[in-house]
Amino acid sequence: MRESDSIREGRNVVLEALRQQIPVDRLFVQEGRLSGNLETVVREAKKQKIDIKFVSKDRLDGISETGKHQGVIAYISQWQYSQLSDVLNNASEKNEDPFLFVLDGITDPHNLGAIIRTANTVGAHGVIIKKHGAAGLTSACAKSSAGAIFYTPVVRVTNISKTIEELKKHGLWFVCADMDGCSYYDLDLTGPLAIVIGDEGKGISDLVKKKCDYVASIPVRGEIESLNASVAAGVMSYEVLRQRNAAIV
Amino acid sequence: MRESDSIREGRNVVLEALRQQIPVDRLFVQEGRLSGNLETVVREAKKQKIDIKFVSKDRLDGISETGKHQGVIAYISQWQYSQLSDVLNNASEKNEDPFLFVLDGITDPHNLGAIIRTANTVGAHGVIIKKHGAAGLTSACAKSSAGAIFYTPVVRVTNISKTIEELKKHGLWFVCADMDGCSYYDLDLTGPLAIVIGDEGKGISDLVKKKCDYVASIPVRGEIESLNASVAAGVMSYEVLRQRNAAIV
Repeated sequence: MRESDSIREGRNVVLEALRQQIPVDRLFVQEGRLSGNLETVVREAKKQKIDIKFVSKDRLDGISETGKHQGVIAYISQWQYSQLSDVLNNASEKNEDPFLFVLDGITDPHNLGAIIRTANTVGAHGVIIKKHGAAGLTSACAKSSAGAIFYTPVVRVTNISKTIEELKKHGLWFVCADMDGCSYYDLDLTGPLAIVIGDEGKGISDLVKKKCDYVASIPVRGEIESLNASVAAGVMSYEVLRQRNAAIV
Repeated sequence: MRESDSIREGRNVVLEALRQQIPVDRLFVQEGRLSGNLETVVREAKKQKIDIKFVSKDRLDGISETGKHQGVIAYISQWQYSQLSDVLNNASEKNEDPFLFVLDGITDPHNLGAIIRTANTVGAHGVIIKKHGAAGLTSACAKSSAGAIFYTPVVRVTNISKTIEELKKHGLWFVCADMDGCSYYDLDLTGPLAIVIGDEGKGISDLVKKKCDYVASIPVRGEIESLNASVAAGVMSYEVLRQRNAAIV
């Protein structure tokens, strides 16, 4: 993956970038009343969970490269996404059972970054994320990933359930982390495997959960019912590593 | 613990609050040249890793309750810290071996919150943090903790090494997470125990590391050398729980 920040200016240009799902890092919008398609830009950006900053006209004038920002400037972060085949090739080249993370809607870029970092340290072959309504590869995510974003392939898909079906054809098993199910450390986590993590608020969607082969819970001994999503991903995946190492010995 | 946000206004009042280590959540400072003791306020706040926002005089006038802010307003968050004895009593009341987290300088309030959340879910009896140069109990931390801050005692100490010595008298063993040492899952993590986690940048200080009984590493299989601090705390502490549960069976 590579970074090449660039700027898009003007209402139609930015709107087109958003509609084409070009990853926008940050959006600067002129403060005040939102008229016409500037309102559409903001609505679309909110839908994509993009960080929007409302700033003065002077600030926009200062950032603008063309002088024709029309009240909106987008910073495009051109982190490149990988393909599903890259992830599977990554595993087969290393002669290892595929080990993936599937994220069913992580919205916080810091959590996403921390999970990509964990995926790298644990030796996973890739991370699959949702295209809509979830955090993507932005500068905040890159920073949180401590650079893991450069090494671990991230695939963005429209439909998580369909992707799970596709990957099952390649022999993968799916374990999702949820509040019910047996303890994750009582499961056999060796073999070709994907760990499925839900979003920070509602957890895993029913549709995705139904596609999973196992539901695993992380035991809780206190008053708080669940872990932070990136911590949950870390706890589950390090148990995978522990079991795989034990299987080799 | 309880929350009771309040406002402190004026240079001397805010400086006094900072010097008394009253936990400041956010500091609003008038933008422009910092003169005299306003500079001292900012320096002290930076030392304490407090979130400083530089805003217009109008904004300060809007927030001010007295109308005499002199260019500075502090939001005080009165989350209460616990005593070391509270943590040990927490363990003995539950008739359990003490299980603590010792944080050697976590600076990100989100990481601190996530660790307190993990400490709660894993059934630990308390979290010990550094008084100086580290994140404290603020609203950002409370939010990240998902409310765990209300249940899990947090103790703030001046000197981590001395606190470790003190706790050793109560029979605790100390395991720190670092890049060297044996794999954490090859260690016996049952019995009275504290997990020591270093700061996000430099890890554990040499002085604190020397006081630990064991150095444990979390294995890494990728290009990135270490985990996010809150993920590392989660991985280590869930291995403690796994081993304790196995010991009971």
